[in-house]
Amino acid sequence: MLIGELGEEALLRQLRSLFAVTSTGVPVGVGDDAAVIDIPDGHQMVWSTDILVEAIHFRTDWQPARTLGRKCLAVNISDIISMGALPHYALLTLSLSPATEVEYILELCQGFCDLAMEVGVAVIGGDTSASPAGMTISVTAGGLVPEGRAVLRSGASPGDAILVIGYLGSASGGLKLLEGNVSPRDYPGLLAAFLDPACLLGESRAAAAAGATAMTDVSDGLSTDLAHICQESGAGARIFLDRLPVHPDLPRAAERLGWDGEAMLLGGGEDYSLLLTVPPAAADDAVKKISESSDAPVTMIGEIEAGGGIVLVAGDGSETPLAEQGFDHFTRSGDRG
Amino acid sequence: MLIGELGEEALLRQLRSLFAVTSTGVPVGVGDDAAVIDIPDGHQMVWSTDILVEAIHFRTDWQPARTLGRKCLAVNISDIISMGALPHYALLTLSLSPATEVEYILELCQGFCDLAMEVGVAVIGGDTSASPAGMTISVTAGGLVPEGRAVLRSGASPGDAILVIGYLGSASGGLKLLEGNVSPRDYPGLLAAFLDPACLLGESRAAAAAGATAMTDVSDGLSTDLAHICQESGAGARIFLDRLPVHPDLPRAAERLGWDGEAMLLGGGEDYSLLLTVPPAAADDAVKKISESSDAPVTMIGEIEAGGGIVLVAGDGSETPLAEQGFDHFTRSGDRG
Repeated sequence: MLIGELGEEALLRQLRSLFAVTSTGVPVGVGDDAAVIDIPDGHQMVWSTDILVEAIHFRTDWQPARTLGRKCLAVNISDIISMGALPHYALLTLSLSPATEVEYILELCQGFCDLAMEVGVAVIGGDTSASPAGMTISVTAGGLVPEGRAVLRSGASPGDAILVIGYLGSASGGLKLLEGNVSPRDYPGLLAAFLDPACLLGESRAAAAAGATAMTDVSDGLSTDLAHICQESGAGARIFLDRLPVHPDLPRAAERLGWDGEAMLLGGGEDYSLLLTVPPAAADDAVKKISESSDAPVTMIGEIEAGGGIVLVAGDGSETPLAEQGFDHFTRSGDRG
Repeated sequence: MLIGELGEEALLRQLRSLFAVTSTGVPVGVGDDAAVIDIPDGHQMVWSTDILVEAIHFRTDWQPARTLGRKCLAVNISDIISMGALPHYALLTLSLSPATEVEYILELCQGFCDLAMEVGVAVIGGDTSASPAGMTISVTAGGLVPEGRAVLRSGASPGDAILVIGYLGSASGGLKLLEGNVSPRDYPGLLAAFLDPACLLGESRAAAAAGATAMTDVSDGLSTDLAHICQESGAGARIFLDRLPVHPDLPRAAERLGWDGEAMLLGGGEDYSLLLTVPPAAADDAVKKISESSDAPVTMIGEIEAGGGIVLVAGDGSETPLAEQGFDHFTRSGDRG
């Protein structure tokens, strides 16, 4: 059945009943003009929003609806997690062509709901509208952090160790497989990283507890996201190419398919790995503690330095300055994936 | 200049510096992974989200950019206001065609910012993306209400007086003027209601203080929005056609242009007037108190009754049941404007 046949009221009824299970315990969830939520004393709230546009961020022929729903939420709560906060709330807006299959949208929302339940997020609001062309999904997520404990981008100091939780360049590889119409069965790790990124919730808590001084998620690529930490902290960084965490599928695929693996490690976005800094004395212990809470690799890739700029140290010891390589949606420059 | 020429990074820099003025006093505003906000003890937060789609909700050839920006925020905080809460925070996402004029977007954001400053709202987050066609704007707003004091749709009791703050059917008239290509200069009240709806912030506070038992905003049309209050409160209602608040421009335009003025009063949406109920003993005092804080008319239009359904009483005393007439975005049925 098509959305234009089902109608908005009927769709909203189904979505409300779907999302109601996530918001037990919320004073007022979906259904009134706005939701009402309780905030425990001694906490601050953390809020973030993201927009995902069909044909720009996703293609329905590439992505099963359920993983698309999971990814929409995962991308958003990644911003909450990377503040060292616990995600608690989400709002979802959908702008849909009347020619969209109802089943695809219900599956998408089921995936959103599944992940919400897994990570303890209540879906407290939303809106739907027709769209003249394509689907636009906007998600806003809120979380809680004990007062004064948010881990900002600005807290890194010279000497701090730079850690990555998870892999770099994997999602970029998954996108290249899809774009190149390569059978993804040989490289399942890359495809999964792009279609259904993990939520590093426990890892973020462990990182905050281990004394993380700055943290962000790798959404725009290491070079861009590390530059954000450096700029906000008034510092520079030195990273070692040999230490960057590479999923074993990536070098195999890069060799066979002629990709520039190094550029993908440094510039590939959408991994939603965590990038953080810790004081040097706490670094080994942080790696150990975070690793205990995680299936993802925890890797020390370099250190924060005084002064600006990021230096990349190659395997032979040669040093080159690292330029930002983030993707620009409007000019389409940079490496998106 | 076009958005595709300016680029995303440059646009974001301009928007961040524009919105920074709204968020002085916020612990962490725009610029980190997420914003951090303080919540005073003894309060709950109220959150809502709305999506506005070009060619569905607005046309750039009809609407000056600055009023479009104001309306995007006004529509959203209307949901916060109609909970009896004070709006404090907003997040804004924009999905834009690269062929959009930069000046239009900056003006739009200036209008958003202007209203944010007027009503004390901090713009704490946002996101931008390219769009394959047309503009999609999604706004999420948050507010604060003293614990347990949110005014829900479910609180009306039989005997409660039904009040409207503002006019009905005016925005619907403004839209019809634009659709019919009628010179709007003769009916400025209707056009302003559609393009630049007022924020009834003080009125909502006065209504809550005067003992409002239920409240919502008239976004989908009186018949639909009153039905929401009746359904949630497990009650019915009786309203009097002669008492519905009509802007003087509406009957003049309806007569000259052959509109069904009664249908517009009952079914026209997007007025963002407030619809509320108060206990009968408090009704006269509520009208007086709210009127003191408002330039908008405050009108008692009927009363809540036991049982379901809404009865419309005509000028001659005849009674007819009132059906919902809300607009369905996907089937395009109902009266949108």
